[in-house]
Amino acid sequence: MSVPLTDAAIDQLFLTARTYNAWLPKEVTDEQIHRIYELAKMGPTSANMSPMRLRFIKSKDAKERLKPYLSEGNSAKTMAAPVTAIVATDFEFYEHLPKLFPHADARSWFAGNAQAIQEHGVRNGTLQGAYLIMAARSLGLDCGPMTGFDFPGVDAEFFAGTQIKANFLVNIGYGDAGTNLFPRSPRFEFDEVARIL
Amino acid sequence: MSVPLTDAAIDQLFLTARTYNAWLPKEVTDEQIHRIYELAKMGPTSANMSPMRLRFIKSKDAKERLKPYLSEGNSAKTMAAPVTAIVATDFEFYEHLPKLFPHADARSWFAGNAQAIQEHGVRNGTLQGAYLIMAARSLGLDCGPMTGFDFPGVDAEFFAGTQIKANFLVNIGYGDAGTNLFPRSPRFEFDEVARIL
Repeated sequence: MSVPLTDAAIDQLFLTARTYNAWLPKEVTDEQIHRIYELAKMGPTSANMSPMRLRFIKSKDAKERLKPYLSEGNSAKTMAAPVTAIVATDFEFYEHLPKLFPHADARSWFAGNAQAIQEHGVRNGTLQGAYLIMAARSLGLDCGPMTGFDFPGVDAEFFAGTQIKANFLVNIGYGDAGTNLFPRSPRFEFDEVARIL
Repeated sequence: MSVPLTDAAIDQLFLTARTYNAWLPKEVTDEQIHRIYELAKMGPTSANMSPMRLRFIKSKDAKERLKPYLSEGNSAKTMAAPVTAIVATDFEFYEHLPKLFPHADARSWFAGNAQAIQEHGVRNGTLQGAYLIMAARSLGLDCGPMTGFDFPGVDAEFFAGTQIKANFLVNIGYGDAGTNLFPRSPRFEFDEVARIL
Protein backbone atom coordinates (compact mmCIF):
# COMPACT_ATOMS: atom_id res chain seq x y z
CA MET A 1 0.00 0.00 0.00
CA SER A 2 1.39 3.38 -1.00
CA VAL A 3 1.49 6.57 1.04
CA PRO A 4 1.07 10.17 -0.13
CA LEU A 5 4.08 11.76 -1.76
CA THR A 6 5.83 14.54 0.11
CA ASP A 7 4.38 18.03 0.02
CA ALA A 8 7.36 19.12 -2.07
CA ALA A 9 6.66 16.44 -4.68
CA ILE A 10 2.95 17.32 -4.80
CA ASP A 11 3.85 20.98 -5.19
CA GLN A 12 6.18 20.14 -8.06
CA LEU A 13 3.59 18.00 -9.83
CA PHE A 14 0.46 20.05 -9.20
CA LEU A 15 0.27 22.97 -6.82
CA THR A 16 3.19 25.19 -7.75
CA ALA A 17 3.72 23.79 -11.28
CA ARG A 18 2.87 26.38 -13.91
CA THR A 19 2.50 26.70 -17.66
CA TYR A 20 5.68 28.54 -18.63
CA ASN A 21 6.10 30.97 -21.51
CA ALA A 22 9.84 31.58 -21.17
CA TRP A 23 12.76 29.25 -20.64
CA LEU A 24 16.10 29.32 -18.88
CA PRO A 25 19.07 28.68 -21.21
CA LYS A 26 19.59 25.08 -20.13
CA GLU A 27 19.47 22.08 -22.44
CA VAL A 28 17.04 19.20 -22.20
CA THR A 29 19.17 16.18 -23.01
CA ASP A 30 18.21 13.31 -25.29
CA GLU A 31 18.50 11.10 -22.22
CA GLN A 32 15.89 13.22 -20.42
CA ILE A 33 13.60 13.01 -23.45
CA HIS A 34 13.88 9.23 -23.46
CA ARG A 35 13.22 9.16 -19.73
CA ILE A 36 10.05 11.27 -20.13
CA TYR A 37 8.73 8.71 -22.60
CA GLU A 38 9.74 5.72 -20.48
CA LEU A 39 7.56 7.09 -17.65
CA ALA A 40 4.66 8.36 -19.74
CA LYS A 41 4.27 5.09 -21.62
CA MET A 42 3.41 3.25 -18.40
CA GLY A 43 0.19 5.17 -17.78
CA PRO A 44 -3.05 3.29 -18.45
CA THR A 45 -4.86 3.29 -21.80
CA SER A 46 -7.91 1.34 -22.93
CA ALA A 47 -6.83 -2.16 -23.90
CA ASN A 48 -3.26 -0.85 -23.63
CA MET A 49 -3.75 0.71 -27.06
CA SER A 50 -1.06 3.38 -26.54
CA PRO A 51 -1.97 5.50 -29.59
CA MET A 52 0.30 8.47 -28.76
CA ARG A 53 3.08 9.21 -31.22
CA LEU A 54 5.76 11.81 -30.53
CA ARG A 55 8.14 14.08 -32.34
CA PHE A 56 10.54 15.96 -30.10
CA ILE A 57 11.51 19.11 -32.02
CA LYS A 58 14.93 20.03 -30.71
CA SER A 59 17.34 20.98 -33.53
CA LYS A 60 17.32 24.39 -35.16
CA ASP A 61 16.37 22.78 -38.48
CA ALA A 62 13.38 20.99 -36.99
CA LYS A 63 12.26 24.14 -35.18
CA GLU A 64 12.33 25.98 -38.51
CA ARG A 65 10.11 23.27 -40.01
CA LEU A 66 7.61 23.81 -37.20
CA LYS A 67 7.72 27.61 -37.13
CA PRO A 68 5.41 28.41 -40.09
CA TYR A 69 2.57 26.53 -38.42
CA LEU A 70 2.71 28.20 -35.01
CA SER A 71 0.21 30.90 -34.09
CA GLU A 72 1.74 34.32 -33.65
CA GLY A 73 1.41 34.18 -29.87
CA ASN A 74 3.14 30.81 -29.66
CA SER A 75 5.98 31.38 -32.11
CA ALA A 76 8.75 33.16 -30.19
CA LYS A 77 8.42 31.12 -27.01
CA THR A 78 8.36 27.87 -28.94
CA MET A 79 11.39 28.76 -31.01
CA ALA A 80 13.18 29.57 -27.74
CA ALA A 81 12.15 26.40 -25.87
CA PRO A 82 14.83 23.72 -25.41
CA VAL A 83 12.48 21.16 -26.93
CA THR A 84 8.91 21.09 -28.24
CA ALA A 85 7.00 17.82 -28.19
CA ILE A 86 4.45 17.26 -30.92
CA VAL A 87 1.93 15.02 -29.13
CA ALA A 88 0.07 13.16 -31.85
CA THR A 89 -2.31 10.23 -32.20
CA ASP A 90 -2.06 7.30 -34.57
CA PHE A 91 -5.56 6.47 -35.77
CA GLU A 92 -4.27 3.14 -37.03
CA PHE A 93 -3.47 2.22 -33.42
CA TYR A 94 -5.67 -0.88 -33.67
CA GLU A 95 -3.20 -2.57 -36.02
CA HIS A 96 -0.84 -2.91 -33.03
CA LEU A 97 -3.35 -4.45 -30.64
CA PRO A 98 -2.36 -8.06 -31.35
CA LYS A 99 1.02 -7.13 -29.84
CA LEU A 100 -0.12 -4.69 -27.15
CA PHE A 101 -3.20 -6.58 -25.96
CA PRO A 102 -2.61 -10.24 -26.75
CA HIS A 103 -5.35 -11.48 -24.39
CA ALA A 104 -8.19 -10.90 -26.86
CA ASP A 105 -8.90 -10.07 -30.49
CA ALA A 106 -9.04 -6.37 -29.70
CA ARG A 107 -8.21 -5.39 -33.27
CA SER A 108 -11.65 -6.57 -34.33
CA TRP A 109 -13.29 -4.11 -31.92
CA PHE A 110 -12.00 -1.25 -34.04
CA ALA A 111 -11.13 -2.27 -37.61
CA GLY A 112 -13.79 -0.74 -39.87
CA ASN A 113 -15.50 1.11 -37.01
CA ALA A 114 -14.62 4.74 -37.67
CA GLN A 115 -16.49 6.09 -34.66
CA ALA A 116 -14.80 3.73 -32.21
CA ILE A 117 -11.40 4.46 -33.76
CA GLN A 118 -11.95 8.20 -33.44
CA GLU A 119 -13.32 8.15 -29.88
CA HIS A 120 -10.77 5.75 -28.44
CA GLY A 121 -7.86 7.23 -30.35
CA VAL A 122 -8.63 10.74 -29.16
CA ARG A 123 -9.36 9.74 -25.56
CA ASN A 124 -6.32 7.55 -25.09
CA GLY A 125 -3.88 9.67 -27.06
CA THR A 126 -4.90 12.61 -24.91
CA LEU A 127 -4.57 10.65 -21.65
CA GLN A 128 -1.04 9.78 -22.73
CA GLY A 129 -0.32 13.42 -23.50
CA ALA A 130 -1.27 14.33 -19.95
CA TYR A 131 0.94 11.53 -18.61
CA LEU A 132 3.76 13.07 -20.65
CA ILE A 133 3.26 16.44 -18.96
CA MET A 134 3.23 14.81 -15.53
CA ALA A 135 6.28 12.70 -16.40
CA ALA A 136 8.26 15.79 -17.42
CA ARG A 137 7.28 17.54 -14.20
CA SER A 138 8.23 14.48 -12.14
CA LEU A 139 11.70 14.70 -13.71
CA GLY A 140 12.10 18.31 -12.64
CA LEU A 141 11.18 19.84 -15.99
CA ASP A 142 8.51 22.42 -16.78
CA CYS A 143 5.95 22.38 -19.57
CA GLY A 144 4.08 24.80 -21.76
CA PRO A 145 1.28 22.97 -23.59
CA MET A 146 -0.42 24.69 -26.55
CA THR A 147 -3.04 24.15 -29.21
CA GLY A 148 -2.50 27.40 -31.07
CA PHE A 149 -1.08 26.03 -34.32
CA ASP A 150 -2.10 24.96 -37.81
CA PHE A 151 -3.06 21.32 -37.31
CA PRO A 152 -3.27 20.26 -40.98
CA GLY A 153 0.01 22.05 -41.63
CA VAL A 154 1.84 20.21 -38.84
CA ASP A 155 0.30 16.92 -39.96
CA ALA A 156 1.46 17.43 -43.53
CA GLU A 157 4.95 18.51 -42.46
CA PHE A 158 5.63 15.77 -39.90
CA PHE A 159 3.16 12.93 -40.50
CA ALA A 160 2.54 12.86 -44.27
CA GLY A 161 1.34 9.52 -45.60
CA THR A 162 0.17 8.26 -42.20
CA GLN A 163 -2.98 8.31 -40.08
CA ILE A 164 -1.09 10.18 -37.36
CA LYS A 165 -2.65 13.52 -36.42
CA ALA A 166 -1.28 16.22 -34.13
CA ASN A 167 -3.14 16.64 -30.82
CA PHE A 168 -1.20 19.37 -29.02
CA LEU A 169 2.29 20.78 -28.56
CA VAL A 170 4.28 20.94 -25.34
CA ASN A 171 7.30 23.15 -24.83
CA ILE A 172 9.62 21.47 -22.33
CA GLY A 173 12.52 22.95 -20.43
CA TYR A 174 13.32 24.83 -17.27
CA GLY A 175 10.73 27.56 -16.86
CA ASP A 176 11.78 31.17 -16.39
CA ALA A 177 9.40 32.42 -13.71
CA GLY A 178 10.59 35.97 -14.20
CA THR A 179 9.38 36.36 -17.79
CA ASN A 180 5.81 36.30 -19.11
CA LEU A 181 4.50 34.08 -16.34
CA PHE A 182 0.83 34.99 -16.13
CA PRO A 183 -0.94 35.24 -12.78
CA ARG A 184 -2.59 31.97 -11.84
CA SER A 185 -6.11 31.80 -13.24
CA PRO A 186 -8.98 30.73 -10.98
CA ARG A 187 -10.13 27.14 -10.75
CA PHE A 188 -13.57 25.78 -9.90
CA GLU A 189 -14.28 24.94 -6.27
CA PHE A 190 -15.12 21.28 -5.65
CA ASP A 191 -18.82 21.96 -5.14
CA GLU A 192 -19.09 23.79 -8.47
CA VAL A 193 -18.14 20.78 -10.55
CA ALA A 194 -18.16 17.65 -8.37
CA ARG A 195 -20.41 15.72 -6.02
CA ILE A 196 -19.96 12.76 -3.73
CA LEU A 197 -23.02 10.54 -4.12
CA MET B 1 14.41 24.99 -10.74
CA SER B 2 13.02 21.61 -9.74
CA VAL B 3 14.85 18.32 -9.42
CA PRO B 4 13.63 14.81 -10.25
CA LEU B 5 11.37 13.18 -7.70
CA THR B 6 12.74 10.23 -5.77
CA ASP B 7 12.78 6.82 -7.41
CA ALA B 8 10.10 5.71 -4.96
CA ALA B 9 7.82 8.57 -5.99
CA ILE B 10 8.36 7.86 -9.68
CA ASP B 11 7.64 4.18 -9.10
CA GLN B 12 4.41 5.07 -7.31
CA LEU B 13 3.28 7.43 -10.08
CA PHE B 14 4.40 5.48 -13.13
CA LEU B 15 6.65 2.46 -13.01
CA THR B 16 5.08 0.17 -10.46
CA ALA B 17 1.59 1.72 -10.54
CA ARG B 18 -0.95 -0.66 -12.02
CA THR B 19 -4.58 -0.77 -13.10
CA TYR B 20 -6.23 -2.68 -10.28
CA ASN B 21 -9.23 -4.98 -10.54
CA ALA B 22 -9.67 -5.77 -6.85
CA TRP B 23 -9.60 -3.60 -3.75
CA LEU B 24 -8.52 -3.91 -0.16
CA PRO B 25 -11.34 -3.29 2.35
CA LYS B 26 -10.22 0.22 3.27
CA GLU B 27 -12.33 3.32 2.88
CA VAL B 28 -11.49 6.30 0.70
CA THR B 29 -12.56 9.26 2.81
CA ASP B 30 -14.48 12.30 1.58
CA GLU B 31 -11.43 14.34 2.57
CA GLN B 32 -9.27 12.23 0.25
CA ILE B 33 -11.77 12.71 -2.57
CA HIS B 34 -11.67 16.47 -2.11
CA ARG B 35 -7.88 16.37 -2.03
CA ILE B 36 -7.75 14.43 -5.33
CA TYR B 37 -9.79 17.17 -6.95
CA GLU B 38 -7.77 19.99 -5.40
CA LEU B 39 -4.66 18.58 -7.07
CA ALA B 40 -6.20 17.54 -10.38
CA LYS B 41 -7.81 20.93 -10.94
CA MET B 42 -4.40 22.63 -11.07
CA GLY B 43 -3.27 20.81 -14.21
CA PRO B 44 -3.21 22.86 -17.41
CA THR B 45 -6.14 23.13 -19.83
CA SER B 46 -6.58 25.28 -22.94
CA ALA B 47 -7.57 28.79 -21.86
CA ASN B 48 -8.04 27.30 -18.38
CA MET B 49 -11.39 25.95 -19.61
CA SER B 50 -11.53 23.14 -17.03
CA PRO B 51 -14.42 21.23 -18.60
CA MET B 52 -14.19 18.13 -16.38
CA ARG B 53 -17.17 17.40 -14.18
CA LEU B 54 -17.13 14.64 -11.57
CA ARG B 55 -19.47 12.37 -9.69
CA PHE B 56 -17.83 10.27 -7.00
CA ILE B 57 -20.03 7.20 -6.60
CA LYS B 58 -19.48 6.04 -3.04
CA SER B 59 -22.74 5.16 -1.30
CA LYS B 60 -24.48 1.86 -1.80
CA ASP B 61 -27.48 3.68 -3.28
CA ALA B 62 -25.36 5.51 -5.83
CA LYS B 63 -23.52 2.33 -6.75
CA GLU B 64 -26.88 0.66 -7.41
CA ARG B 65 -27.80 3.55 -9.73
CA LEU B 66 -24.57 2.97 -11.68
CA LYS B 67 -24.71 -0.82 -11.76
CA PRO B 68 -27.19 -1.36 -14.62
CA TYR B 69 -24.91 0.55 -17.01
CA LEU B 70 -21.67 -1.32 -16.29
CA SER B 71 -20.41 -3.94 -18.71
CA GLU B 72 -20.44 -7.46 -17.31
CA GLY B 73 -16.65 -7.50 -16.91
CA ASN B 74 -16.63 -4.23 -14.99
CA SER B 75 -19.61 -4.80 -12.71
CA ALA B 76 -18.34 -6.79 -9.74
CA LYS B 77 -15.07 -4.92 -9.33
CA THR B 78 -16.81 -1.56 -9.57
CA MET B 79 -19.47 -2.48 -7.06
CA ALA B 80 -16.65 -3.55 -4.72
CA ALA B 81 -14.49 -0.45 -5.19
CA PRO B 82 -14.42 2.09 -2.33
CA VAL B 83 -15.35 4.82 -4.79
CA THR B 84 -15.93 5.13 -8.53
CA ALA B 85 -15.36 8.47 -10.21
CA ILE B 86 -17.51 9.30 -13.21
CA VAL B 87 -15.17 11.54 -15.21
CA ALA B 88 -17.38 13.63 -17.46
CA THR B 89 -17.13 16.67 -19.70
CA ASP B 90 -19.39 19.71 -19.75
CA PHE B 91 -19.84 20.76 -23.37
CA GLU B 92 -21.17 24.10 -22.16
CA PHE B 93 -17.74 24.79 -20.64
CA TYR B 94 -17.43 27.98 -22.67
CA GLU B 95 -20.13 29.69 -20.61
CA HIS B 96 -17.64 29.76 -17.71
CA LEU B 97 -14.74 31.27 -19.63
CA PRO B 98 -15.47 34.87 -18.60
CA LYS B 99 -14.69 33.72 -15.05
CA LEU B 100 -11.94 31.18 -15.77
CA PHE B 101 -10.09 33.15 -18.47
CA PRO B 102 -10.80 36.83 -17.83
CA HIS B 103 -7.90 38.04 -20.00
CA ALA B 104 -9.80 37.72 -23.29
CA ASP B 105 -13.26 37.13 -24.72
CA ALA B 106 -12.62 33.39 -24.91
CA ARG B 107 -16.33 32.57 -24.84
CA SER B 108 -16.63 33.99 -28.36
CA TRP B 109 -14.07 31.47 -29.65
CA PHE B 110 -16.53 28.67 -28.93
CA ALA B 111 -20.15 29.85 -28.72
CA GLY B 112 -21.93 28.57 -31.82
CA ASN B 113 -18.88 26.63 -33.05
CA ALA B 114 -19.87 23.01 -32.52
CA GLN B 115 -16.62 21.57 -33.85
CA ALA B 116 -14.43 23.72 -31.59
CA ILE B 117 -16.63 22.93 -28.59
CA GLN B 118 -16.38 19.20 -29.28
CA GLU B 119 -12.62 19.11 -29.94
CA HIS B 120 -11.60 21.31 -27.05
CA GLY B 121 -14.10 19.81 -24.62
CA VAL B 122 -12.95 16.27 -25.34
CA ARG B 123 -9.23 17.11 -25.31
CA ASN B 124 -9.26 19.13 -22.12
CA GLY B 125 -11.76 17.03 -20.22
CA THR B 126 -9.59 14.01 -20.97
CA LEU B 127 -6.38 15.77 -19.92
CA GLN B 128 -8.08 16.55 -16.62
CA GLY B 129 -9.14 12.92 -16.26
CA ALA B 130 -5.51 11.87 -16.55
CA TYR B 131 -4.50 14.48 -13.99
CA LEU B 132 -7.12 12.93 -11.70
CA ILE B 133 -5.52 9.50 -12.05
CA MET B 134 -2.08 10.95 -11.34
CA ALA B 135 -3.44 12.95 -8.40
CA ALA B 136 -4.95 9.84 -6.82
CA ARG B 137 -1.69 7.97 -7.26
CA SER B 138 0.28 10.85 -5.77
CA LEU B 139 -1.93 10.56 -2.67
CA GLY B 140 -1.13 6.87 -2.27
CA LEU B 141 -4.30 5.59 -3.90
CA ASP B 142 -4.67 3.18 -6.80
CA CYS B 143 -6.91 3.49 -9.85
CA GLY B 144 -8.82 1.28 -12.23
CA PRO B 145 -9.97 3.34 -15.24
CA MET B 146 -12.62 1.87 -17.55
CA THR B 147 -14.71 2.67 -20.60
CA GLY B 148 -16.77 -0.51 -20.61
CA PHE B 149 -20.17 0.99 -19.75
CA ASP B 150 -23.36 2.29 -21.36
CA PHE B 151 -22.48 5.93 -22.01
CA PRO B 152 -26.00 7.20 -22.87
CA GLY B 153 -27.36 5.31 -19.86
CA VAL B 154 -24.90 6.91 -17.45
CA ASP B 155 -25.54 10.32 -18.99
CA ALA B 156 -29.30 9.95 -18.56
CA GLU B 157 -28.98 8.67 -15.00
CA PHE B 158 -26.48 11.22 -13.69
CA PHE B 159 -26.45 14.20 -16.08
CA ALA B 160 -30.03 14.51 -17.41
CA GLY B 161 -30.95 17.96 -18.68
CA THR B 162 -27.33 19.08 -19.09
CA GLN B 163 -24.64 19.06 -21.77
CA ILE B 164 -22.43 16.96 -19.49
CA LYS B 165 -21.35 13.63 -21.02
CA ALA B 166 -19.49 10.76 -19.37
CA ASN B 167 -15.91 10.25 -20.60
CA PHE B 168 -14.65 7.33 -18.50
CA LEU B 169 -14.94 5.75 -15.06
CA VAL B 170 -12.17 5.31 -12.52
CA ASN B 171 -12.37 2.95 -9.59
CA ILE B 172 -10.29 4.38 -6.74
CA GLY B 173 -9.05 2.66 -3.61
CA TYR B 174 -6.19 0.58 -2.32
CA GLY B 175 -5.43 -2.04 -4.93
CA ASP B 176 -5.33 -5.72 -4.04
CA ALA B 177 -2.29 -7.00 -5.91
CA GLY B 178 -3.18 -10.58 -5.03
CA THR B 179 -6.48 -10.70 -6.92
CA ASN B 180 -7.07 -10.41 -10.67
CA LEU B 181 -4.00 -8.29 -11.31
CA PHE B 182 -3.12 -9.05 -14.92
CA PRO B 183 0.49 -9.40 -16.04
CA ARG B 184 1.90 -6.11 -17.28
CA SER B 185 1.20 -5.70 -21.00
CA PRO B 186 4.02 -4.64 -23.32
CA ARG B 187 4.63 -0.99 -24.20
CA PHE B 188 6.20 0.45 -27.34
CA GLU B 189 9.92 1.14 -27.29
CA PHE B 190 10.86 4.79 -27.80
CA ASP B 191 12.03 4.24 -31.37
CA GLU B 192 8.75 2.61 -32.36
CA VAL B 193 6.66 5.70 -31.66
CA ALA B 194 8.94 8.70 -31.08
CA ARG B 195 11.76 10.58 -32.73
CA ILE B 196 14.06 13.40 -31.70
CA LEU B 197 14.37 15.79 -34.64
